[in-house]
Amino acid sequence: LDYQHVQVPFEITLWIMLASLAKIGFHLYNKLPSVVPESCLLIFVGLIMGGIIYGLNDRSPPVMDSDIFFLYLLPPIVLDAGYFMPSRPFFENIGTILLYAVVGTIWNVFGIGFSLYGICQVKAFQLQDVSLLHNLLFGSLIAAVDPVAVLAVFEEIHVNEKLHILVFGESLLNDAVTVVLYKLFRSFCEMPTIKSVDVFAGVGKFFVVGLGGVLVGLSFGFTAAFTTRFTKDIRVIEPLFVFLYSYLSYLTAEMFHLSGIVAIISCAMGMKRYVEANISLKSHTTVKYFMKMWSSVSDTLIFIFLGVSTIGENHEWNWPYICFTVIFCLIWRALGVLVLTFFVNRFHVNTITSKDQFIIAYGGLRGAICFSLVFLLPDFHRKKLFIAATTVVILFTVFIQGMTIRPLVDLLAVKRKRESAPTVGEQIHIRFLDHLLAGIEDISGHWGQYYWKDKLEYFNSKYLQKILLREYDQPKSSIVLLYEKLERKHAIELAQAGQLGHGPAHPSFLIRCSAFLCSSTDRTVITDQKLEDTPNPDVLDNMQEILARNLYRIRRTGPAYNRHTLPGDSEPTEQAKEILILRHKSL
Amino acid sequence: LDYQHVQVPFEITLWIMLASLAKIGFHLYNKLPSVVPESCLLIFVGLIMGGIIYGLNDRSPPVMDSDIFFLYLLPPIVLDAGYFMPSRPFFENIGTILLYAVVGTIWNVFGIGFSLYGICQVKAFQLQDVSLLHNLLFGSLIAAVDPVAVLAVFEEIHVNEKLHILVFGESLLNDAVTVVLYKLFRSFCEMPTIKSVDVFAGVGKFFVVGLGGVLVGLSFGFTAAFTTRFTKDIRVIEPLFVFLYSYLSYLTAEMFHLSGIVAIISCAMGMKRYVEANISLKSHTTVKYFMKMWSSVSDTLIFIFLGVSTIGENHEWNWPYICFTVIFCLIWRALGVLVLTFFVNRFHVNTITSKDQFIIAYGGLRGAICFSLVFLLPDFHRKKLFIAATTVVILFTVFIQGMTIRPLVDLLAVKRKRESAPTVGEQIHIRFLDHLLAGIEDISGHWGQYYWKDKLEYFNSKYLQKILLREYDQPKSSIVLLYEKLERKHAIELAQAGQLGHGPAHPSFLIRCSAFLCSSTDRTVITDQKLEDTPNPDVLDNMQEILARNLYRIRRTGPAYNRHTLPGDSEPTEQAKEILILRHKSL
Repeated sequence: LDYQHVQVPFEITLWIMLASLAKIGFHLYNKLPSVVPESCLLIFVGLIMGGIIYGLNDRSPPVMDSDIFFLYLLPPIVLDAGYFMPSRPFFENIGTILLYAVVGTIWNVFGIGFSLYGICQVKAFQLQDVSLLHNLLFGSLIAAVDPVAVLAVFEEIHVNEKLHILVFGESLLNDAVTVVLYKLFRSFCEMPTIKSVDVFAGVGKFFVVGLGGVLVGLSFGFTAAFTTRFTKDIRVIEPLFVFLYSYLSYLTAEMFHLSGIVAIISCAMGMKRYVEANISLKSHTTVKYFMKMWSSVSDTLIFIFLGVSTIGENHEWNWPYICFTVIFCLIWRALGVLVLTFFVNRFHVNTITSKDQFIIAYGGLRGAICFSLVFLLPDFHRKKLFIAATTVVILFTVFIQGMTIRPLVDLLAVKRKRESAPTVGEQIHIRFLDHLLAGIEDISGHWGQYYWKDKLEYFNSKYLQKILLREYDQPKSSIVLLYEKLERKHAIELAQAGQLGHGPAHPSFLIRCSAFLCSSTDRTVITDQKLEDTPNPDVLDNMQEILARNLYRIRRTGPAYNRHTLPGDSEPTEQAKEILILRHKSL
Repeated sequence: LDYQHVQVPFEITLWIMLASLAKIGFHLYNKLPSVVPESCLLIFVGLIMGGIIYGLNDRSPPVMDSDIFFLYLLPPIVLDAGYFMPSRPFFENIGTILLYAVVGTIWNVFGIGFSLYGICQVKAFQLQDVSLLHNLLFGSLIAAVDPVAVLAVFEEIHVNEKLHILVFGESLLNDAVTVVLYKLFRSFCEMPTIKSVDVFAGVGKFFVVGLGGVLVGLSFGFTAAFTTRFTKDIRVIEPLFVFLYSYLSYLTAEMFHLSGIVAIISCAMGMKRYVEANISLKSHTTVKYFMKMWSSVSDTLIFIFLGVSTIGENHEWNWPYICFTVIFCLIWRALGVLVLTFFVNRFHVNTITSKDQFIIAYGGLRGAICFSLVFLLPDFHRKKLFIAATTVVILFTVFIQGMTIRPLVDLLAVKRKRESAPTVGEQIHIRFLDHLLAGIEDISGHWGQYYWKDKLEYFNSKYLQKILLREYDQPKSSIVLLYEKLERKHAIELAQAGQLGHGPAHPSFLIRCSAFLCSSTDRTVITDQKLEDTPNPDVLDNMQEILARNLYRIRRTGPAYNRHTLPGDSEPTEQAKEILILRHKSL
């Protein structure tokens, strides 16, 4: 037995396997996931696992490594979020999202930091040794809403699209603010004196970190789109580029201390439409499927690890500090949302209702990012207190808030997500209005979102598409693309309906037919299928008709087989023409 | 700049990126890959890269780590090979393949080992210090034909299926023999005296290593199939299980010093038919696509690394030893194939022609497995000589034999692969004959392959399918499955043909139509599309007709969106019925 040799991949594979099996387990009992969010269940599994490890080894189970979290587990989830981001509501609400993400997060950081510092001044609590800076540092890591936790909970409760994008967008974009503030306070903690220059440099860093992330992301995204122009002969590695370039954008951003989350989201959103047009349909299915799969597994692993890491002796318990942390997190978030929404509502026609505000405030879940950041803190004597407080806040938000948010949404009758896709009429009207508003803004000289959208679209069709798309000769309007997609879907459904159409007798006829043809020797098959009688003339006629109608010449498979293609991947134009002729004949 | 932090994933991603870009580069110039096999080009790229690294750093570039090769690069390729293995020709020729793989490899090992020992006795060559055991150890690593190299070359030359499976099957199954002999001789080298017991234990190990691998693989394969029974509600992680279980089978086999290659192949072949039936169509596309992609990238990386590792100062040059190694490799393989084929042909009706024999002997390419094994040797004073000899043999076989095998196949007019798939008639007849022969073997009491195949099939339908398949109520005969597949393909083609069918005017009509609807504001789009004229009444009529014919009610998207499903993943029965009704109406 040579376990050492295979240990690393073996244990990784086993963890992933455990996560996947846990997921299957939950879904076997349909009632459980509808009451308790999956994230809670997974943390629970993690707690049990951690308890077992702790009990067996008699020492704390390994905590989730921050490097593993930031380098391997987080990127797939954020990539998935960025790639499937509904871009229209996101850009329509970008102002509000940024306000929540930047100002809201700063508000929370300072609010929580200062008020905890106030608590530390109470002598009875024995916390006088926690300095203001340490409290602010703690505030900076506990303030940020976590995209993984938000996604896990909000995707199950189906609130309306605007509300969803407000909470989710905030949780993604606040990463830039968190990165800057966390690093700022951490370096301040280690500096002997703080000059005002440092503070201003910190403010400047916001823009560098955020915009730098966007820039890195977009450049990798466009490079990815450009690369997929040249993959026509080697379809099989197309999906790779989507993953490689987005991961590179994340790593590059992290390398330069920019916001990796912002970078990978910009990369995914930037490349999506071009890549989608360049790569084959099968490649795109693979990309989408793998992205979902990967993020789903990462997400599961994160929550399980969160549970495992909770068990152990990393905690220092101090009732007042921990309780007040939870209370301040709730209060400052609620206040922040109220104040910011007041300003937002003054400038918008579609206001955010008070119900929505409540859900936004209540949906401020904390998760694995806080947890990893608190473990990344430099060692100092109160680190274990911070770890305990962070753990409690995470468990409180995920369990209490996560489990009650669905009943609350029901109770408040928060506007739900529209369940039907917009009709073609609606889509045409939305488009019509977009153009109209762009025209009005242009004439009135107002540089609003429609104006910019129009300009971007112009820039896109004039330059970007020519560079990034393989076949630019015929720009496909979205209605043609929709039509093609529907036609494809329809065709597949027709095929399935065709089989249904011949009634339940049809497959069995074919079976009988083949059974009949092989009846002289096909002993086992026939006895198994309980084919009671030999076919009578009626059945035979029917059979012949079905065969004549359905079995057609099997087309030649091309000689083009090689390693880089899947069977049946060849260009279908030749066959399509042939079928077209057949079809015309049959009509 | 914090490079240290992201170094590992960053460099891995960059290597994969380099490999993928190199692949795209070759395929941009269509003429190059048709003359030079891709493996040669990749080694060449590796040599250049290695040269650059050597030139810049002034020290040997890093050699391919054997652990990385065996744990991460080899499994995807072997998994791909096993999953897409044509099982019928493989099992029809299993006896011949095993003979080549086991007896042939042993023959080569001892032939090369003893004759090199003979060379070492020549005083003029200054090789007297290389012992017989060391020569045999070297023989054991240089004798085995490499699946990666064989696959890379043989998939481009399209020889007939039997020839392909003979060479390829041998290269896969000889792994068990190589593992045993290599480890045996290596331990003998370190032992002071060798007892005859050890030799017998070595012989016994063959069976343990090979059959143990099969056993491990099959058990993981069946577990995988069983697991996919329960993934109906969570389709998105289905592909994961295929990869996880096969990788686990490989790692487990390696852990117990069994043959990992044999294990992963058994796993893939064992699970394929059940998994395919259990998982959704999209999942299966993803599995197939990702497997191809992964193996393609691994393969590329291996050849590039092979090139990079060649450069440097790891070599000790000794003309006679190296030249005689190449010559003996060629001679002993040729002799082995001749002798073994003589016996094989005596027991078979379909004999292996002398042309085929030549190609089998000539196609014995060596590759990265030898290379990794030679670096895994314990340090002794002639290791560098062995490395040099191995490198030369690999480069000789891949470059000289790999590049000349295609012209030789043309020259000898070796029977090529049938380019068309068998017709339904042929398939039915093959099946008929199978049953007939099984019956004859049963009556005559001969336990031949048809007899066993029939028994296996019975066991499969009686027990395995009931345990491993989700919906067992209706055993689908292969002809029904084929029919369904064809129907689906046909439907997709119809959809594409439908668009072709309305002539080239059709998409532009739709564009015009949408453009017309938006013409009041859609300024940029219209100017870009150079829509010269406003639609006249004729065109409008035509347009309306097309729209009426083609645009149908967009179906409601179900409310079932959640993290674990892709959009449009819902069960299509409801829609299929609806379409069925529409279709009946239209008929």
